[in-house]
Amino acid sequence: MAATATAASISTMPFPSSTLGYELKSDFPTLDQDAYPGKPLVYLDSAATSQKPRQVLEAMAAYYEQSNANVHRGVHALSIRATDAYEAARDKVQHFVHAGAREEIVFTRGATEAINLVAYTWGLQNLKAGDEILLTVMEHHSNLVPWQLVAAKTGAVLKFVGLNDVEGLDMDQFYALLSPKTKLVAFPHVSNTLGCILPAKDMAAAAHRVGAVVLVDACQSVPHMKVDVQDLDVDFLAASSHKMCGPTGAGFLYGKLALLKEMPPWQGGGEMIDEVFLEYSTYAGPPARFEAGTPPIAEVVGMGAACDYLTKVGMEAVEAHEQALGKYLYEKLDEVEGLRIYGPPPGENGKGRAALAAFNTDQVHASDLAFFLDHEGVAIRSGHHCTQPLHRMLHAKGSLRASLYVYNTKDDVDVFIAKLRETMHFFGNFQGSGGGNAAGAGL
Amino acid sequence: MAATATAASISTMPFPSSTLGYELKSDFPTLDQDAYPGKPLVYLDSAATSQKPRQVLEAMAAYYEQSNANVHRGVHALSIRATDAYEAARDKVQHFVHAGAREEIVFTRGATEAINLVAYTWGLQNLKAGDEILLTVMEHHSNLVPWQLVAAKTGAVLKFVGLNDVEGLDMDQFYALLSPKTKLVAFPHVSNTLGCILPAKDMAAAAHRVGAVVLVDACQSVPHMKVDVQDLDVDFLAASSHKMCGPTGAGFLYGKLALLKEMPPWQGGGEMIDEVFLEYSTYAGPPARFEAGTPPIAEVVGMGAACDYLTKVGMEAVEAHEQALGKYLYEKLDEVEGLRIYGPPPGENGKGRAALAAFNTDQVHASDLAFFLDHEGVAIRSGHHCTQPLHRMLHAKGSLRASLYVYNTKDDVDVFIAKLRETMHFFGNFQGSGGGNAAGAGL
Repeated sequence: MAATATAASISTMPFPSSTLGYELKSDFPTLDQDAYPGKPLVYLDSAATSQKPRQVLEAMAAYYEQSNANVHRGVHALSIRATDAYEAARDKVQHFVHAGAREEIVFTRGATEAINLVAYTWGLQNLKAGDEILLTVMEHHSNLVPWQLVAAKTGAVLKFVGLNDVEGLDMDQFYALLSPKTKLVAFPHVSNTLGCILPAKDMAAAAHRVGAVVLVDACQSVPHMKVDVQDLDVDFLAASSHKMCGPTGAGFLYGKLALLKEMPPWQGGGEMIDEVFLEYSTYAGPPARFEAGTPPIAEVVGMGAACDYLTKVGMEAVEAHEQALGKYLYEKLDEVEGLRIYGPPPGENGKGRAALAAFNTDQVHASDLAFFLDHEGVAIRSGHHCTQPLHRMLHAKGSLRASLYVYNTKDDVDVFIAKLRETMHFFGNFQGSGGGNAAGAGL
Repeated sequence: MAATATAASISTMPFPSSTLGYELKSDFPTLDQDAYPGKPLVYLDSAATSQKPRQVLEAMAAYYEQSNANVHRGVHALSIRATDAYEAARDKVQHFVHAGAREEIVFTRGATEAINLVAYTWGLQNLKAGDEILLTVMEHHSNLVPWQLVAAKTGAVLKFVGLNDVEGLDMDQFYALLSPKTKLVAFPHVSNTLGCILPAKDMAAAAHRVGAVVLVDACQSVPHMKVDVQDLDVDFLAASSHKMCGPTGAGFLYGKLALLKEMPPWQGGGEMIDEVFLEYSTYAGPPARFEAGTPPIAEVVGMGAACDYLTKVGMEAVEAHEQALGKYLYEKLDEVEGLRIYGPPPGENGKGRAALAAFNTDQVHASDLAFFLDHEGVAIRSGHHCTQPLHRMLHAKGSLRASLYVYNTKDDVDVFIAKLRETMHFFGNFQGSGGGNAAGAGL
């Protein structure tokens, strides 16, 4: 396997020998532009959304120009081609995350809908007053607010695992909080703010020992590393297309078939039914039961093409590239005086940490810094990254975040660090001009 | 106004002077192909989904290639451009249906999600045991199943308005069923099977007189005629992008602001919150409250471009074209012996009926006929068109449906009718070989 060989050779080579970003960049038309005149775009916001390779854009254009029709409903040529393309994408996603059956892949409009689907079906059906939902303090709002809403409706109680000394998950507390009362354990595979990678397989096994069901928010892992749902043995896993080289408007829920089969319908409409009478209906089996209405057909086709693209690159190669480049990013940021980087440092060869870094400086407000960097062509994010409770815990109103993907290069990081230093130097000349986002003496 | 002038001149001219289809066809790349070698595609399935003009496809490609970023969350150039494009589409949809405020347009993944949103927020909040939900027997499953689910949860009772002698809505029965118990009146603006156009303005006024809230399924009207939500004075209106020249994966809910403001959140996640704490959250106002997670950004941009496209053509011109061509379709079908066309005949100049016709013959099963027509290049639909209860009432297991749009021409109808006659003649030579879908003696 060429991909594996490449990955192996990359992972054993010291950075900057990971040339993947240079090889792939030309696949992504968006990256070939100046953000402002004379300021080439350096896109470091892939944790918010990834850019799309022309292979994905071409697959969607081909769908619209050659096969566009509604699915599952017609016998004419276009409808059959559209249905085939839509269902072929299900096979692609199934293989991409190594699900045991194609029926375990439910297409949604994104990860948020996937998590809400579980909350409003499995959650309302199975949770009752006093049951415990175990989450972490690092949840993205999309894996927190739905459980708050379900807890309010059922009387279930939310419990939260906190952080350890290095701002990873406190695994001791995680194990301590598990009990027979725990009915659901939900957590992010990778924190979009701390960058830490949680031991999903161990956590799932421990949760199962107390009889809990496990849901993983995999938005920040599925695009970046090999994720095998059977090996992890999680019950539900949600991811979005737009963060993994695919279009907006699509995502998927993986769910174990035995669970999906027991879940009631949520949204009602076409496609999800078996027989409809005026007064009542009977419902299709999974996955159709959960795909009411005309689905995001072209978007799902695009997500399938994104799986093809990433598979061709090789997820081992993607992961090795990101480990090398993420470690480089962390180390270069760590050399900048006055920066506070959140989350644990990367391990050997960059393992254990995603290729992203959220940080603050006490010199400049995060949004001001992002604004100035933007005008140098460097696109990084400032804000709460949909993790307000975590930011509150970190005594920060918000933070800056640089996040990398397959198309990023050492040059991207070098430009970013140079412009960051310049901007901070510029602000440093105005003493007392700001006051950063990070409170506390620990900066 | 050029568009109005064109519309006026078309609407007063006898068919086949409506040349709109010939003018626009080249905008739609999908239509320029053979369904099978030597069999040019005649696409008559637009009620299921419309084809997309290159203007829409180019707008989405431009978004992905130049502006792709997540929205509402960043200060960098791409994020600002993406947000501007996304919110500009809200203005476009607002103006397209003449909503009073941009906040009244909630983007969803389609009409089905829009209706479910109302069911799970307004419905669960306001309906209680004994309250009546007044629907029609011609509902699409997407405007029926959600209310069945809500009725089961609340104890509300479903009531149904039946058909009159010509298979339009029985307006006498509609008025008779309205009472102070009626809390919600929901109906299709245009039936996707019968083709009848319901008097939405009158129905809304009558519903309001008894204090009911009105929801209109406008999937088959918004793409085809000028729809003015303020003139209709409906409370909620749902439509999908993919039926109006836009991409799959998007749609919208129009809701009166006063109602939207009182509605609780439904799906939880990013974007829809104000402040998030571990235990609870406060929520954004509409429309953000109902747009949890990364929205279908490119798809909404594409839907906005579809509004631009249709506005440029002129909705009066679209409607006049469809009235002329729809009347021609109906009359030509009516001339074919042994066909049973469902729904009322068109009025003068084609008014009062949409440009679609569902029908059956007692000679051939609908699916067989669709299969044979497909191999002649003619794409029409067979099945229940997501109106199983209506088909049951019509004593039909399914039906064939030909549906037209802006890009269809007199030639399309002529080819369809010729191939239909040929196919029926072919089957007619096998006496007793089939038995059609339509039961009963009324064929």
